[in-house]
Amino acid sequence: MIQLSKFPFKTMKSTPNGSDNISTGLLLQSGMIRQVMAWVYTYTTLWLQVLKNIENIVREEMNNYDCFETLMPALSPRDAWEKTWRWDSIDVFFHIPVTNDKEYWLNSTHEEIITPLLWEFIQSYKDLPVCAYQIQNKFRNEKRAKSWLLRGREFIMKDAYSFHSSDEEFKEYYEGMKKVYLKIFERLWLGNDIYIAQADGGTFTDKYSHEFQVKLEIGEDLIFLDPLSKECFNKEVTPSMISTPNKSDAILLEREDIYAPWVIGVEALTKTLGVPAHKATKTMMFETNDGKFIVASVRGDYDINTLKLQKIIGCKWLSLAQEEKIKQMTGAEVGYAGIYNLPASWIELYLDDSLVWLTNFETGTNKTWYHSKNVNFWKDILEPKKFYDFKEAKIWDKNPNTWEIYEVFKWCEVGNIFPLETKFSLALGVKYLDENNQEKIPLMGCYGIGISRLMGVIAEYYMDKNGIAWPENIAPAYYYIIVLWEENLQRASSYAKNLEKEGKKVIFDDRMGKKIWFGQKMGDAELLGIKNIVIFSDKTKDTEKWYETKIRGEK
Amino acid sequence: MIQLSKFPFKTMKSTPNGSDNISTGLLLQSGMIRQVMAWVYTYTTLWLQVLKNIENIVREEMNNYDCFETLMPALSPRDAWEKTWRWDSIDVFFHIPVTNDKEYWLNSTHEEIITPLLWEFIQSYKDLPVCAYQIQNKFRNEKRAKSWLLRGREFIMKDAYSFHSSDEEFKEYYEGMKKVYLKIFERLWLGNDIYIAQADGGTFTDKYSHEFQVKLEIGEDLIFLDPLSKECFNKEVTPSMISTPNKSDAILLEREDIYAPWVIGVEALTKTLGVPAHKATKTMMFETNDGKFIVASVRGDYDINTLKLQKIIGCKWLSLAQEEKIKQMTGAEVGYAGIYNLPASWIELYLDDSLVWLTNFETGTNKTWYHSKNVNFWKDILEPKKFYDFKEAKIWDKNPNTWEIYEVFKWCEVGNIFPLETKFSLALGVKYLDENNQEKIPLMGCYGIGISRLMGVIAEYYMDKNGIAWPENIAPAYYYIIVLWEENLQRASSYAKNLEKEGKKVIFDDRMGKKIWFGQKMGDAELLGIKNIVIFSDKTKDTEKWYETKIRGEK
Repeated sequence: MIQLSKFPFKTMKSTPNGSDNISTGLLLQSGMIRQVMAWVYTYTTLWLQVLKNIENIVREEMNNYDCFETLMPALSPRDAWEKTWRWDSIDVFFHIPVTNDKEYWLNSTHEEIITPLLWEFIQSYKDLPVCAYQIQNKFRNEKRAKSWLLRGREFIMKDAYSFHSSDEEFKEYYEGMKKVYLKIFERLWLGNDIYIAQADGGTFTDKYSHEFQVKLEIGEDLIFLDPLSKECFNKEVTPSMISTPNKSDAILLEREDIYAPWVIGVEALTKTLGVPAHKATKTMMFETNDGKFIVASVRGDYDINTLKLQKIIGCKWLSLAQEEKIKQMTGAEVGYAGIYNLPASWIELYLDDSLVWLTNFETGTNKTWYHSKNVNFWKDILEPKKFYDFKEAKIWDKNPNTWEIYEVFKWCEVGNIFPLETKFSLALGVKYLDENNQEKIPLMGCYGIGISRLMGVIAEYYMDKNGIAWPENIAPAYYYIIVLWEENLQRASSYAKNLEKEGKKVIFDDRMGKKIWFGQKMGDAELLGIKNIVIFSDKTKDTEKWYETKIRGEK
Repeated sequence: MIQLSKFPFKTMKSTPNGSDNISTGLLLQSGMIRQVMAWVYTYTTLWLQVLKNIENIVREEMNNYDCFETLMPALSPRDAWEKTWRWDSIDVFFHIPVTNDKEYWLNSTHEEIITPLLWEFIQSYKDLPVCAYQIQNKFRNEKRAKSWLLRGREFIMKDAYSFHSSDEEFKEYYEGMKKVYLKIFERLWLGNDIYIAQADGGTFTDKYSHEFQVKLEIGEDLIFLDPLSKECFNKEVTPSMISTPNKSDAILLEREDIYAPWVIGVEALTKTLGVPAHKATKTMMFETNDGKFIVASVRGDYDINTLKLQKIIGCKWLSLAQEEKIKQMTGAEVGYAGIYNLPASWIELYLDDSLVWLTNFETGTNKTWYHSKNVNFWKDILEPKKFYDFKEAKIWDKNPNTWEIYEVFKWCEVGNIFPLETKFSLALGVKYLDENNQEKIPLMGCYGIGISRLMGVIAEYYMDKNGIAWPENIAPAYYYIIVLWEENLQRASSYAKNLEKEGKKVIFDDRMGKKIWFGQKMGDAELLGIKNIVIFSDKTKDTEKWYETKIRGEK
C-alpha cells in the first residue's frame, strides 16, 4: 500500500516542458520517472510496479511454453564475442577497459553467453528442443536515441534462446512462440492493434524474421499491411509493385545526348531537362563483398532498397562504389551514371520492374557532363531478360502477390523473433548427437520483447488528456482510495488493508491539509491512471457502504 | 512447477574440481550456477528462485519501514561523479568510453544519482525523513576478487539512501534501520549468528559505520567480539589492550648503540641482537595530508593500524613517508628509525600504550646502520605525556573498556549501514527549508545489503555433505515430488498442481527410464536442498494418502 502522506514521488501541477512526446510528459508530471541523462531514466516506485506487472505476465507465458528463466551477467569477456566476429563488427556495443590488456563487453544480447552455458548440459537430440530466457538490463551505445521509451542506451529486455534438432521441429516451435507472443500482448491489452510484420532475417538465412508491431503515431517503423491477406511487412523487406505504371508512348523518339554539366540527381534533372521523375531513371553503382561491380536502376520517383537488391544478387553486403571505381568502370565522373552506354561485358545490370513500361525516358550517359533523353529499351539498350523488385516501397504501392494497395502506418516494435539457423551454433562450435550417434549442429532461434519499450508503448497507447488510463492488470495500483477529513481515516485504512490482503495494490490518498482538496486528489488519481477510485468522505460516512466508488473517466 | 523431465539445468554426479569453496562446488554440481568468467556467474532457474525469495523478504521489510523502491540506471554521466570528487579518486569503478569526449560510469553505488533525484521532490523539513532504495546489479572492477559469492565484479545489492533534518531524527531512524536489518536476517535464518560490528565511518565523521556480519569460516573479515558487552568490532577499528604487558626490569641498564648494518625489521633484529619482539619497538614514519611528519611506535610484536592512528592525529589521510623525507627529517636512511635520538622539536611522536611498561628495550637510533639496546623512558627518552591505542588488534587482546579478552572469528559481511553526515548533500548542493524558512543541509545515511553475497553466505552456512539444506522460505522449491513408474504420474501431477495453487513452489521429478532410479532422485532432492520430499511409488499407491513424505536429512 502506497500511503501518499509519506510518499516522496509527488505529482506536479502541470506537464513539464521539453519531453519527447505527450506520454513521457504525463509520466514526468505523475512523478513516475525522472531523467538521469539523455535516454537514461530512473523508475520511481509506481513505474517500477508497472514494470513488475508486465514482467510477471511475460514470465508466466514464457514459463507455460517450457522456457526456463535464468539471469546472465551484464559483463562478459572479449573472447566470447571474437568467436562470432561481433567484437569489432558492431559499433553500438559498449566495450569496457578493465586492465591494460583486457576488455569486457557490456551485454546487449546473449547468444554468445547462453550457447556455451546450455552446452554444459546438452548432449543428445533427447535434450532438444530447449529454451532459456531472462529479463534483464541491456546496453547499447546508440548514436541517435529517439523518444526515450522506444530506444534508449539502457533498457530492459526479455530475451529467449532456443535450440533444435530439425527444421520441422524448429518451425513448429517458432510458430508456437508467435502464439505465445500474441497471448502476451493480448494480456497487455494491445491485442487490437498488434501485427506480426515480416522483416529482414539477416545475411545468414533466406527466412524472414518477425516483428511484433503496435500501431502508434510516434512509432519509428513504417509498416505495409496488405488489407486482403493481412500480411504485414517492415518497409525494409516490403515487396512492392507500382500503382501507376507508365503508359508507353506510341512513337519511340530519337535519343538525344544532352550537355548538362553539374546537373546531378533526379530533382535537378527534371528541373533542367523538363523530364518528369516518372520518366527518368535513378541509377546507382555498387560493389559487393565478393568484388562484383553492380549497376542498378529504378524509376526516378523511387529509391533503391539495398537490402532487397542484396538478396536478389545473393551477396553478403553491398556498398556504394567509390568515385575512382566508377570512373574506372564507366569512364565517367560520378553523377552521370545511367543505364545507357554501359560497357556491358564486365558489368552486372539490374533493372527494377518500375522501369518495365518506360519509353522515351531519361538516363545518365556514362559520359561526364552528359545525360540522355528519349532513351528506349531494345532501341538504345538491350532490354534485360528479367526485371526485379528492389525498389523501396512507397505509399500507394501494391503487394505484387495480391495486387492489393498497402495500408501504410507508423508502428512501434515491441517484440521480435529470429530464426538464427546455425549461425551461432557453428561459430561457437556446439554439437549434439542424433538418433544415429552422429554429431549434428543445432538450429537456433531467438525471441525478444522490449519490456521497458513496451511500458512506453502502453503508456502512449492508453494515455488521455488527464493521464495514462492503465489497464487494471498493468496499472501501478488496482484501487485509488481518497480519504477526506481525518475522522474517516481509520475506516478507510482498514478497508484498504483488506484489499491488499486480497492481493490488490492500493494507493491510499491520506494527504490532509488546506491545500489538498478533493479535486486535486481526483486529478492525481486520473494522472496516475488508476481505474477504480474509492472515496471516503463526510458525504458517504453515513451511507450503508461508508464509501462511494467511481470509475476513472466516467462521469 | 519445475518439471525435471523437461528441465535443462541438470545435476552432476559429482562435485566439479576447482571451486573456491565447498558450497560453490555443490552449487555447480546442482546446476544452479555456471561461471561465465572469473567472478562473474550465470544464475540458472533454481538459483534465480532463491534470489527472488531473498529479494522479496528484503523488499517487504524495507517497505514496512516506509522506504520506497525505485530502479536507478547502471549508466550515469561523468559529471555527476566529478561533483563529489569520486570520478578520479576511486579506482575500482568501471569507466566506459562512449564517444571521444564522453565517458559513462558503470554504477557501483548511487549517492550521486538518488540525491538530485529526490531533490526534485523535496522542499521543506516536512518532506523529511525520506528513504528510497533499489535492488539492482552493481559493478566493481575488483583487482583481487575472492570466493566469488562473497566478492565479485558484478553483484546484486539492495542499496537505500535516507535524508534527515536533525541529528536526533537521523539517529532514531538509523537505530530503527538496525532493527529492520536484524529482522531481515532473522527471516533469512541467520539470526543465531548475526552480529553488528562497528567499523570505520570514513574521514568525514567521528561516528562508526555498522556492519552486519555472519560467523563463517570462509569469511574474509576478522571480527573481535567482547563476550561481556557483546560489542563487536571490525579489526580495522578494534580498540585493544595487550593481555601480556611487560614486567619492568628492576635495574635500568646503560644504553648501548650497536653497529648492525642491513639488519632491518623486528624479526631480523631479534635474531641478530637476541632481543625478544616484546622488548623491541616497531617505529614507522608518516606524512599527513596537511604536511605533518609523524613518528609512531608500537611494541615489536604488534603492527600499527593506520586508520586508528589517523583518527588520533585527526588528519584526512596518512601515507608512509618517502625515503628522501625520512633522511631529511632524521638524518638516517630508512630502516634505522626509532624513538631514540629524534630531533624532537619538529617531529610529532606518537607512542602506543603497548610500550607503557617497557624497560631496557630496543629501538632504532635514527643513525644509519645503528640500533640501540637497553633504552629506557625518562633516562634515554623524555617519556611522552600520553600513550595512545593505535595498535592493530590481535588474538588474545582485551577490550580496554571492559578488560575482557576478545573472541576473534572469521566473519562474512552481508550488510552495512553508514552515517554519511552532510558529505554528499554538501557536495551535491541540496538544501531544505526548516521551520523558520531557513535553508539547511540535510543529513544522509546509506544502507546496503549484498543480496548475491547473502545467497552465497546462506548456501555456505546451510550446506551439509549432500547439498545445501535450504531453509524452506529461501529454498528453490517448497516441495520435491518424486514419481516412480509412469502409472503414478497423473495422480502426482494433480497433487503438485494443487500445491502450486496454494502458492508453494514444486520441483516435480517425473524423469523416467532405466538410468534414473529412486536413489538418484533422492540424491538430487538432497543436492538441491529441498526440505519436503513427497514420494509417489508403487509401494504407496494403495495407501490411503497415495504418497509418503520424507524430511530431507531425517532417517
